[in-house]
Amino acid sequence: MSAGAGAFPERVRIREVGPRDGFQNEPEIIATDDKVRLVDLLARTGVPRLEVTSFVRADVIPQLADAAQVLERMDVPDRVAVSVLIPNERGLEAALAHRGRFDEINVFLSASETHNRRNVNRSVRESLGGVTRVLRRGREEGLRCEGVISVAFGDPYEGRVAPDRVFSIATELATAGAQEVGFGDTTGMANPRQVAEFFPAARTALPGVELTAHFHNTRGQGLANVLAALGAGVESFESSFGELGGCPVPAGATGNIATEDLVSMLHEMGIATGIDLPALLQASAAARDVLGRPLGSHTLLAGPVDWSPAG
Amino acid sequence: MSAGAGAFPERVRIREVGPRDGFQNEPEIIATDDKVRLVDLLARTGVPRLEVTSFVRADVIPQLADAAQVLERMDVPDRVAVSVLIPNERGLEAALAHRGRFDEINVFLSASETHNRRNVNRSVRESLGGVTRVLRRGREEGLRCEGVISVAFGDPYEGRVAPDRVFSIATELATAGAQEVGFGDTTGMANPRQVAEFFPAARTALPGVELTAHFHNTRGQGLANVLAALGAGVESFESSFGELGGCPVPAGATGNIATEDLVSMLHEMGIATGIDLPALLQASAAARDVLGRPLGSHTLLAGPVDWSPAG
Repeated sequence: MSAGAGAFPERVRIREVGPRDGFQNEPEIIATDDKVRLVDLLARTGVPRLEVTSFVRADVIPQLADAAQVLERMDVPDRVAVSVLIPNERGLEAALAHRGRFDEINVFLSASETHNRRNVNRSVRESLGGVTRVLRRGREEGLRCEGVISVAFGDPYEGRVAPDRVFSIATELATAGAQEVGFGDTTGMANPRQVAEFFPAARTALPGVELTAHFHNTRGQGLANVLAALGAGVESFESSFGELGGCPVPAGATGNIATEDLVSMLHEMGIATGIDLPALLQASAAARDVLGRPLGSHTLLAGPVDWSPAG
Repeated sequence: MSAGAGAFPERVRIREVGPRDGFQNEPEIIATDDKVRLVDLLARTGVPRLEVTSFVRADVIPQLADAAQVLERMDVPDRVAVSVLIPNERGLEAALAHRGRFDEINVFLSASETHNRRNVNRSVRESLGGVTRVLRRGREEGLRCEGVISVAFGDPYEGRVAPDRVFSIATELATAGAQEVGFGDTTGMANPRQVAEFFPAARTALPGVELTAHFHNTRGQGLANVLAALGAGVESFESSFGELGGCPVPAGATGNIATEDLVSMLHEMGIATGIDLPALLQASAAARDVLGRPLGSHTLLAGPVDWSPAG
């Protein structure tokens, strides 16, 4: 097969998911004041899309029990598309009480039965029923909608996941109103050859749908998968500042790719993101200070590439 | 430009440089017994090439003062090509006292004047004089020879390094007897677009010379650069088990890519290395135990990808 025959895009869109995906996975609950401050810092980096929280049950995920306060208190410029993760119809109703504070909803389910049952205690078919109702209602409310499919590239419980199964789920999401479908490599099993084959097939299967790649760095291959996706024409990515979150498997392993590592590579390649890397690194440094531990981000430690002769 | 138009190679050759590059960069000197045990473990992973030590001045690099003992005491199967790093003619003489214990010599210099002067206190021209004498002598002794060019993709002191300058140095190395030239991204400044353009030009400039890529993971982009090199037809790589070494800049940053992360990605892509990944992970775990600290390797933490359904 080819190593990727296409030209790279000139510009990509990044959705920063750290305030939801990262904060949700911290063992200690982060103070609402700190969350709001970090969201506000991120909103001024130039990132075009920002997932700020999730309306989940507080007894299930106490880390995000302050979803409404974060939404109401944050100060985000209009140019940033704010999204909230919606687990079910009850979550959507709770979010809609703050309708003017966000632009998009992101819904999710897993490509494998076992992963979906372990994550939300439902079959994929049951999840699709709820998720598609949320998408229809979201569109009625004038919200932009993304559906995210977890373990889209493989699953530790069921092994390989057939792309056709993933595309079939994605088609149901699109039919219900998802303008964008995200494909998550939730446990870091994807490889660049697989990615290079997956996205052209996804484009064929999902005409008119924005395709978003969400990779993890579990085995160090996160940016290699990004490169393969770029070569396959993908122009939309999700990542997390500081390399926060991503539900690391096993505990202690790396989850999401760091937004600053992604931005550093893209900018060095001449691909625009609209993001100011030093501002993003300031936000990650602030998160490191709040959490009081080193983060997995490489560029936070090494600093941006400096091409100006210093010696 | 293209995202890499070539087909991936079916098989690549990896030189494991951890016993030299990694052990040299540890602040604490590793006991000779531990070094020998780790070399012996690595030699049984199936890795085809193994850089085991360097004959440097003990007062300059005390970490490798036991080069002769490591060479004499290690137990490495004949199928593994053993190499030693040779800094100068005196180092070659010291190594030749153990002539039957190794197969290759690796010599090095920097592509930039400032980096070379800071590293070995010589101009590039002065270094080329010494290095080419070592290469000629090495070939007379029947040794296989590799020349490594540091900061070949950019330099923190002088910024961008013109590829033609790098190829000119490489040509002098090849003329003096180097059958293989390694290109080091010593401070992790390379990006995949640059790599995809560099290697085809190198192939044209250096007919008949084996081209080897040595990337660092300084900003998380190491395996993405490997992927770009694979797409450009590169079939030879250097890396370090456990992600040891690589002279991290700044201190604490990541240096070399981890051999196990490289092997994991390649095997998942269906590219053969001859290396047994579980055996390699055992060697890295043994290094972690010797050093008594967590290592940067991702696959050591997460384990290999397991496609067998477990749930």
